[in-house]
Amino acid sequence: MIPLERIRAAAERARPHVLRSPLLPIEGASLKAECLQPTGSFKVRGFFAAALALPADRLRKGLITVSAGNAAQACAYAAHTLGVPCRVFMFDTAPRPKVEGVKRWGATPIFMPRDELLAWMAAEEWRKEPETFLHPFADPEVIAGHGGIGLELLEEIPDLARVVVPVGGGGLISGIASALKGSRPEIEVLGVQSDGYAMWPRVFEAGGPVTVKPETIADGTTGPFDARMFELLKECVDRWLVVAEPRLKAAIPELAATAKVVAEGAGALAYAALEQLPPGPPTVAVVSGGNIDPALLASFLSS
Amino acid sequence: MIPLERIRAAAERARPHVLRSPLLPIEGASLKAECLQPTGSFKVRGFFAAALALPADRLRKGLITVSAGNAAQACAYAAHTLGVPCRVFMFDTAPRPKVEGVKRWGATPIFMPRDELLAWMAAEEWRKEPETFLHPFADPEVIAGHGGIGLELLEEIPDLARVVVPVGGGGLISGIASALKGSRPEIEVLGVQSDGYAMWPRVFEAGGPVTVKPETIADGTTGPFDARMFELLKECVDRWLVVAEPRLKAAIPELAATAKVVAEGAGALAYAALEQLPPGPPTVAVVSGGNIDPALLASFLSS
Repeated sequence: MIPLERIRAAAERARPHVLRSPLLPIEGASLKAECLQPTGSFKVRGFFAAALALPADRLRKGLITVSAGNAAQACAYAAHTLGVPCRVFMFDTAPRPKVEGVKRWGATPIFMPRDELLAWMAAEEWRKEPETFLHPFADPEVIAGHGGIGLELLEEIPDLARVVVPVGGGGLISGIASALKGSRPEIEVLGVQSDGYAMWPRVFEAGGPVTVKPETIADGTTGPFDARMFELLKECVDRWLVVAEPRLKAAIPELAATAKVVAEGAGALAYAALEQLPPGPPTVAVVSGGNIDPALLASFLSS
Repeated sequence: MIPLERIRAAAERARPHVLRSPLLPIEGASLKAECLQPTGSFKVRGFFAAALALPADRLRKGLITVSAGNAAQACAYAAHTLGVPCRVFMFDTAPRPKVEGVKRWGATPIFMPRDELLAWMAAEEWRKEPETFLHPFADPEVIAGHGGIGLELLEEIPDLARVVVPVGGGGLISGIASALKGSRPEIEVLGVQSDGYAMWPRVFEAGGPVTVKPETIADGTTGPFDARMFELLKECVDRWLVVAEPRLKAAIPELAATAKVVAEGAGALAYAALEQLPPGPPTVAVVSGGNIDPALLASFLSS
């Protein structure tokens, strides 16, 4: 796990640039509304923490990342805020709001088919580029930055017992779990994926890599298997939950109606999984992001 | 205006029961996201402040209010939280989510046509009821409770220059303006209504009562003329803005896309009016509530 001191330092670097996200009470739990962050997801926490850990001369040359969408926007926004250039490699299937988000902050998106992009990452092709590559989920400073959420939760709910977190690459849950377990190891950390891309639950069943074709509205969770993250998740995640796609689709309008927040597929996963838990101890569901296509949101609201 | 000390005391009473709402940065302004409050609107601030100002024996007999919807929900929620009974008189046109919100908290809604209900209020018929009547916008303790928003803004933005607030009965803007001007009279407070119910701007043009038929999606702003509020608004509001209905309808999906919050018509008014202001000094738009019919929200997202 990431040491607590490293998380504290990362969260402190990111703090001037990110929102202390509100904790919204719902029946039987609370929502940590990370969808309200600048660029609409928790990713700004990690990217500011990582960018601001770079020596000034390296930062000046700019940032580069690869992303299903939200890391791209966060990297672009951090680069814009810090006044440095930025390029992002994106899946060519990235939802329009996420692509527009990247362009809005003056960064250059570069589109590649999913398989090709995953191969580019696996071969560490970024080493050939002049900018500093920030890995969207495996960079330890990015993970440490996300851990800021855990530090806030410890302050906000002294008797916190369970935290439910959507999982894609695994950076968010690793950061949160490291922060929580570094102070209170007894807090249960639950990872959630959709049954349309239940890669990690299957990996842990199989004991090693599996290949899963994504068929989910939680596009933000379709990151690939990564051996480093496998080791980290083994330490961090106490239990895995899988949410059926129809339940996930219903959860988005529920969040709009009850909590007044817009959640994307990945963002609604933890909330959608709450019904699987016996009621009882103080529980938080992390709403990780809100970058959903308006037409898709409209269709869920109407159905 | 309401004295600053009274606002501080009211905000302090309400504090354990309300959210410190986040300040969400958008281009050229910040949003005070009161739609994230319990029951989906700022009204909980005032109703908790007013209920907790009552002597225990009066509080025990219960609360009664009259409301277009959000005050009803807030009153029901406050009564539920404090363990006392509650009845609410509502327009028979109140949107379904607002009626359901009242029932969810165990209160009894009583439906009346708008004209009849306004006459009931004007004749102060509530004096015949056993419960304590909390006026939804003219009760000084309710107004003082809403002022808590102003106190938070003063802390959050030390160089705050302009605050834009949707206006219905006038309680919200009176509370906020009292808090702001009690500390920094130079802060400009702007009131907003829709051109589908621009009652207050017309009242101030005419110098006295006018009758306006509501034709707006901002159902939360269709409160009646009230002589006490006229006097208070005269002191509190520096300038009036009127938003055209088509602009208001566009503002709701914009808020969902950029800020990831669900706003009802009234809730989107201040944001919708920002385009009328020259860019420049630190400006806040209050997003007052988010209780919108999902089908209506879907239709705005699709158009």
